Amino acid sequence: MKASHFYISTLKEAPSDAEIISHKLMMRAGMIHRVAGGIYSYLPIGLRSIRKIETIVREEMNRAGAIELLMPAVQPAELWQESGRWKKYGPELLRLKDRNARNFVIGPTHEEVVTDIVRRQIKSYRQLPVNFYQIQTKFRDEIRPRFGVMRGREFIMKDAYSFDKDRASLAVSYKKMFDAYVRIFTRIGLEFRAVIADNGSIGGSESHEFHVIAETGEDAIAYCPTSDYAANIEKVDCIPLSNDRAAPMETLLKRATPGKAKCEAVAEYLGIPLERTVKSVVLATDVDGKIKIWLLMLRGDHHLNEIKANRISGLEEFRFASEVEIVEWFGTSSGYLGPIGTKRPMRVIADQTVANMSDFVIGANELNFHLTGVNWGRDLPEPEVYDIRNIVEGDPSPDGKGKIAMCRGIEVGHVFQLGTKYSDAMNATSLSETGKSQHIEMGCYGIGITRILGAAIEQNFDDRGIIWPETIAPFEVVLCPMHYDRSQSVRTVTNQLYEDLLNSGIDVILDDRGERPGVMFFDWELIGIPHRLIIGDRSLKEGKIEYQERRHTDTLFLEKGSAAQVVARKVKAAKKL
Amino acid sequence: MKASHFYISTLKEAPSDAEIISHKLMMRAGMIHRVAGGIYSYLPIGLRSIRKIETIVREEMNRAGAIELLMPAVQPAELWQESGRWKKYGPELLRLKDRNARNFVIGPTHEEVVTDIVRRQIKSYRQLPVNFYQIQTKFRDEIRPRFGVMRGREFIMKDAYSFDKDRASLAVSYKKMFDAYVRIFTRIGLEFRAVIADNGSIGGSESHEFHVIAETGEDAIAYCPTSDYAANIEKVDCIPLSNDRAAPMETLLKRATPGKAKCEAVAEYLGIPLERTVKSVVLATDVDGKIKIWLLMLRGDHHLNEIKANRISGLEEFRFASEVEIVEWFGTSSGYLGPIGTKRPMRVIADQTVANMSDFVIGANELNFHLTGVNWGRDLPEPEVYDIRNIVEGDPSPDGKGKIAMCRGIEVGHVFQLGTKYSDAMNATSLSETGKSQHIEMGCYGIGITRILGAAIEQNFDDRGIIWPETIAPFEVVLCPMHYDRSQSVRTVTNQLYEDLLNSGIDVILDDRGERPGVMFFDWELIGIPHRLIIGDRSLKEGKIEYQERRHTDTLFLEKGSAAQVVARKVKAAKKL
Repeated sequence: MKASHFYISTLKEAPSDAEIISHKLMMRAGMIHRVAGGIYSYLPIGLRSIRKIETIVREEMNRAGAIELLMPAVQPAELWQESGRWKKYGPELLRLKDRNARNFVIGPTHEEVVTDIVRRQIKSYRQLPVNFYQIQTKFRDEIRPRFGVMRGREFIMKDAYSFDKDRASLAVSYKKMFDAYVRIFTRIGLEFRAVIADNGSIGGSESHEFHVIAETGEDAIAYCPTSDYAANIEKVDCIPLSNDRAAPMETLLKRATPGKAKCEAVAEYLGIPLERTVKSVVLATDVDGKIKIWLLMLRGDHHLNEIKANRISGLEEFRFASEVEIVEWFGTSSGYLGPIGTKRPMRVIADQTVANMSDFVIGANELNFHLTGVNWGRDLPEPEVYDIRNIVEGDPSPDGKGKIAMCRGIEVGHVFQLGTKYSDAMNATSLSETGKSQHIEMGCYGIGITRILGAAIEQNFDDRGIIWPETIAPFEVVLCPMHYDRSQSVRTVTNQLYEDLLNSGIDVILDDRGERPGVMFFDWELIGIPHRLIIGDRSLKEGKIEYQERRHTDTLFLEKGSAAQVVARKVKAAKKL
Repeated sequence: MKASHFYISTLKEAPSDAEIISHKLMMRAGMIHRVAGGIYSYLPIGLRSIRKIETIVREEMNRAGAIELLMPAVQPAELWQESGRWKKYGPELLRLKDRNARNFVIGPTHEEVVTDIVRRQIKSYRQLPVNFYQIQTKFRDEIRPRFGVMRGREFIMKDAYSFDKDRASLAVSYKKMFDAYVRIFTRIGLEFRAVIADNGSIGGSESHEFHVIAETGEDAIAYCPTSDYAANIEKVDCIPLSNDRAAPMETLLKRATPGKAKCEAVAEYLGIPLERTVKSVVLATDVDGKIKIWLLMLRGDHHLNEIKANRISGLEEFRFASEVEIVEWFGTSSGYLGPIGTKRPMRVIADQTVANMSDFVIGANELNFHLTGVNWGRDLPEPEVYDIRNIVEGDPSPDGKGKIAMCRGIEVGHVFQLGTKYSDAMNATSLSETGKSQHIEMGCYGIGITRILGAAIEQNFDDRGIIWPETIAPFEVVLCPMHYDRSQSVRTVTNQLYEDLLNSGIDVILDDRGERPGVMFFDWELIGIPHRLIIGDRSLKEGKIEYQERRHTDTLFLEKGSAAQVVARKVKAAKKL
């Protein structure tokens, strides 16, 4: 490609609404153009990277035996009513009416549409397993679209749906997709982790998220550096920190803790470790119009995991108690609460770590007072015990193979075992070997194509701009000739390099715009082309061409005759071809 | 591809809502799956053909210097309000509100979005010309979606938009796109015609439609077999059939024509040629609440062209007069009307053919009576003269190079010179060479990707199914082995053929499903694969492989050793590679 036949449009400054680095750099590099909140046009530079991601995803999907089709963006409400999601999905589902006032949605996913295809086409186990995928435009009406393509409303996704005759076969289909995802992100060349995930609203059983590791990631990931364990923090089951409770050593005392409402302040004031304190989290539920209060007890340095709390019977729809409710049930306000001597009765739930503590500190249900030397059984009844906290750095890994470390990630892929959730609701069945009608076992598998762009940038940038991996760079090599229009020798050598690189199968752009060197370098460093050759009369006199990798600062001088070959070899090595 | 790893699902009968052959065959061949009225999923077989069409279109767009980008499906209403189309577009524009009750549309085209990109990015004539294109999903809320992909609501389109500094440059951009379209349809291998088109609602100046010729086409095309003239019948300017009016020979007579309300009946009753009669078409307009009646006069064998009538000043918003209005203005009802002796005054417009007639026949404004021997000037005032009729077979071609013939076509492409319609409305300007701010000249260029599928089938089918051109067939060659699972020699030869064809770059499918020969042949003839090799023990004994082209009925026997080479050569010749 010659730059004069292409569209390049860079900016010195990012627009003010761009909060994160990938959004800023994509705007500045002219990859995207904002159309409305969370809705972008992909400009030519951006689309090139998207197409390369799509190609890698498509190749690996095909290799894994998935079959491509294409489903519509606009879907009839009837299918969503059948599955139950018409009611459950909430305002992220963009609903609309056609000219005949019939209800439709713009699909955020396609479980309903693909299940409808399968239930009408598949009759027998002999037609199974089958896995359909598409690369298609989706819409999710985010309450606060932001971060450019990272949380847009309209986006491109690869979604695959597997159909199996039984759970064992589903597990095989799931594994194939899991392995394909590992290959995809490995091929793209991003640092990533497959983590055990919570299923969220899609439902089902086993599921993994694929995260690109980046400091700016929205999700916290707990992993074990000495094993392959990794999980979204929301999902990690904590192992009890000790197996027994020590015998009581202290007597119960009421101590003044003036103005010390936080565990940290109490520990410091009393001169004890934070790990000896216990915090009280007060939740409320409404049961047939009657309010019920729950006291959840966590060690002072731990945090409530709301998803785990949600799983406790009766707490499925909890909310945090109001200050008015707290005063009514405890007789005092937050900061000095505890299970001993409350004004009204309540359910007390202890985290499993708290349940094994002795001689601990809790609020006294009196302003500016705490109780020390508290012990289960002796000073208050044994509690109900659950795992209700988030795991923290240094905790034992749930697989028993080391200690937990933390990192942050950007979710770019997700694989689910859906089971028969949709095939039950929509009655998608097949005849088994014994002639019995069975609900088909489903899996679903998504990759955020456009989100990968943002995630790749969050992981690979510097103060000059983007640093693309070769696999998904808009171009692999840029040729920057000095005085292309005036120097015959520069033009001849540049054109020859261009032809040689093209013939080696390299995706090269020749900057023939006639811009000053400073402008050329600024543009291509911002856009992030991984390899740059500068062709100038000065180095040509010595038979050399200046070469720089975007990732490194040092400059190499390559022999004129072999420069194309050297660079082509580097590109192919990086792409593992 | 092996059929066992692919998804094939054919039907013996088409669903009852499929009215035309392409819709029936696409449903039967398992190319599409109906999701809602005019909304389809493209099943794997169908998607393969779509992708091949997209690839050809993309290659020719790139070759013509257009640059690919991708714009969103969901577009903010503000842009459509700026262009004025929010009001003008009518119910085909699918409108919706997001969760914040802001108005959006699902784009039926992208003039507004692309003009917004350009006005924000282009500052100077130096950045022009530029031509952006995309291949993208569109939505048009058709009042009566039908004919499968031929008139769907959600469909895939290639749309390109050119931006030029002046009209001369726009003409060059337009010509490039016109030539690219000719290459695209030539490469696909369809019989087509570029015809002069009416611009319809998009507005602007020069425009051509590209039609695939098919008897079932919705559009009537007038063309000249002895020149390259072709135009949508709506758009053809008629040349007057004679240049002078003959002198009157007859006297004006009132003749009884009992029950003869049609010109044909009158001509037969009076024993004169139909070409001597003149029909009266009565139109009405409302001017400030007052009804005005217009009498349009056409030769008995001619038909009103409403688009031409629309262009007459005062008739821009005409309707046909009601029977009540006709009686009020003429004193009698339809069938016996004419310009002589009306009850109330009206504007009389004669088609240019009628204006040169003498001694003609018109209604007498009295039930069961006509006037014969009518002559302009003598019996009634000279009329206003316009070209208001549709051209008919045998008329002189407007280019003066022969006589008009008629055919029917399916519109698959359209190129427009928009001029400054959108750049005026949305204020998209660039600085000229002299530093003056000028509105950018635009062109727009569409190809109905999914519609091409239907059009190709309407042109190429027989009673067994589809006959694809090699260029867009789901597969180019199918291998049908007899007893693939049982015969070692069949398996060996088939596998070798498969490898050889793949290595020759042929898109081949091996039918390893284990179906009976009858089922295999039925499926692949219905699906329309252009080349078929049958591998069976009987012919293998003689070193032969049975070969059939889908388009022909005769069977050839090819040498086992050279069969792959022969077939590969045929495929490449058909694709003009």
